[in-house]
Amino acid sequence: MKIAIVGAGALGLYYGAMLAKQHDDVHFLLRSDYDAIRRNGLKVNSINGDFYLPEVKCYNKPSDIGRADLVVVGLKTFANDRYRELISDLVKDETLILTLQNGLGNEDALAEIFGAEKIIGGVAFLCSNRGEPGVVNHIGAGRIVIGNFASDDVERVQKIASIFISAGVECKITDDLLKSRWEKLVWNIPFNGLSALLLQSVDKILATKESRMLVKDIMLEVIAAANGDSLSKNIDIEFADKMLEFTDKMGVYKPSMQIDREENRELELDAIFFKPVKRGEGNGLKMPLTRMLSILLKQIGA
Amino acid sequence: MKIAIVGAGALGLYYGAMLAKQHDDVHFLLRSDYDAIRRNGLKVNSINGDFYLPEVKCYNKPSDIGRADLVVVGLKTFANDRYRELISDLVKDETLILTLQNGLGNEDALAEIFGAEKIIGGVAFLCSNRGEPGVVNHIGAGRIVIGNFASDDVERVQKIASIFISAGVECKITDDLLKSRWEKLVWNIPFNGLSALLLQSVDKILATKESRMLVKDIMLEVIAAANGDSLSKNIDIEFADKMLEFTDKMGVYKPSMQIDREENRELELDAIFFKPVKRGEGNGLKMPLTRMLSILLKQIGA
Repeated sequence: MKIAIVGAGALGLYYGAMLAKQHDDVHFLLRSDYDAIRRNGLKVNSINGDFYLPEVKCYNKPSDIGRADLVVVGLKTFANDRYRELISDLVKDETLILTLQNGLGNEDALAEIFGAEKIIGGVAFLCSNRGEPGVVNHIGAGRIVIGNFASDDVERVQKIASIFISAGVECKITDDLLKSRWEKLVWNIPFNGLSALLLQSVDKILATKESRMLVKDIMLEVIAAANGDSLSKNIDIEFADKMLEFTDKMGVYKPSMQIDREENRELELDAIFFKPVKRGEGNGLKMPLTRMLSILLKQIGA
Repeated sequence: MKIAIVGAGALGLYYGAMLAKQHDDVHFLLRSDYDAIRRNGLKVNSINGDFYLPEVKCYNKPSDIGRADLVVVGLKTFANDRYRELISDLVKDETLILTLQNGLGNEDALAEIFGAEKIIGGVAFLCSNRGEPGVVNHIGAGRIVIGNFASDDVERVQKIASIFISAGVECKITDDLLKSRWEKLVWNIPFNGLSALLLQSVDKILATKESRMLVKDIMLEVIAAANGDSLSKNIDIEFADKMLEFTDKMGVYKPSMQIDREENRELELDAIFFKPVKRGEGNGLKMPLTRMLSILLKQIGA
């Protein structure tokens, strides 16, 4: 199976490296790391053991990769307007496109261009960041949950899952992709948002009683919005406390959006904030805290 | 009438200087500016015309001032736990204490120590900041609204008003001090809060559609809380638009709390944020946006 990795930030590089370590036919579409990786290979510093890929199939033009069986999309969502430019040359009739991107709306946007039946959605629970060019640091978690977007064909999802699992990536299958997306947002919205806004790691946000309560109130708002979005099964209220306790164990952790802001990169506000608020409010659920957080984050870039 | 000025930040220095320009018996209790003003006097750069007071009656111990007829309190509210220490030596039976401080709760705290009948409340609409030691810049507005806290004696309030008016300060009398306090909070909470949080002057906050709407939503929340607080007459909803238009005309203006944060000074969170939220929520009015803003402001100092 020929696999193309599109969007090689920390997430794309990590999962791409895991796949390439096990499988021969993995091709990276690179931009900023192209020269470094072509010359020196790709280094992964991982909590599960470091590894090094001396020779990586890397490209800076999609047409040089050609048609693939599976396209794994790890683009930052603000680059979604480049889907057509970056992915079209990789797609043939049977190609599946797996988006591991953050937030809401990615499957819909891909479906509009390439057809809904091609799209598999995935939610990645991964703590990683980029080091110098050609180096990615994997500092926590790593599992993914994938599911069909508009097809009932479970077999093809199982096939993709087995590819990840054989490469050492924990991969579960869901029949409610939207629920998995919302579950990740229950964490992403308060922690990415508050850490990026205040430039404080999650331990600091959780250390103060009031701001811990604010995190929880935002989580409850997101859970309510999720449960108004026709999920197969509601997200329990207790999920908020579970996420708080999970985050307590992370220690001094900077969410990716905080790092993005610190390094003056664009923030993924649309997919992680504005689309969920629009969706929740469209379903008649007020989201005053999430909405305010979204506006504040947009305003710091104004 | 012997007047003592306690708390000589930008506000105390400005009103003290206006009074001292006209009246002989004005005494300043100073701390950081004591040496500079004793040596070189007090300079006011004012939109209404600069002036200079070469000799100012200044002190660094309240006991050196002795009993006064009127004590004007301009302390930052986080120093309210020093009321007893700073004011007791200035008070005799007939002394009136006028607090021009920000936010809610100052009259109550003074009343508890010195007796409710002594207290006059005042709300200052003043744009000013401090320059180098011994210099205060008056950059906009300046009027005050004063009223009894727990007494019906209007005459004494009129007498104080006339002292300010004769010194060139526009001074109105209110029979609903609490309403005036809330009206000022309708401006102070969104603009001081958002400008301090985002480090953006008011024009920048108002330039973006979303954040302008956020300002208005916060204002409406404060107006609702005010109107739940047994005012003599409700604050109109239209007051929010009036304040927005008023602020549009201010141009590139940094609210005092933004300057306080930029200069690493403590923020007046309790009087301007936490007390109003507590009061509003105590009256059964939810204030999610104001509450969140309060928590974020507290958290940036955590």
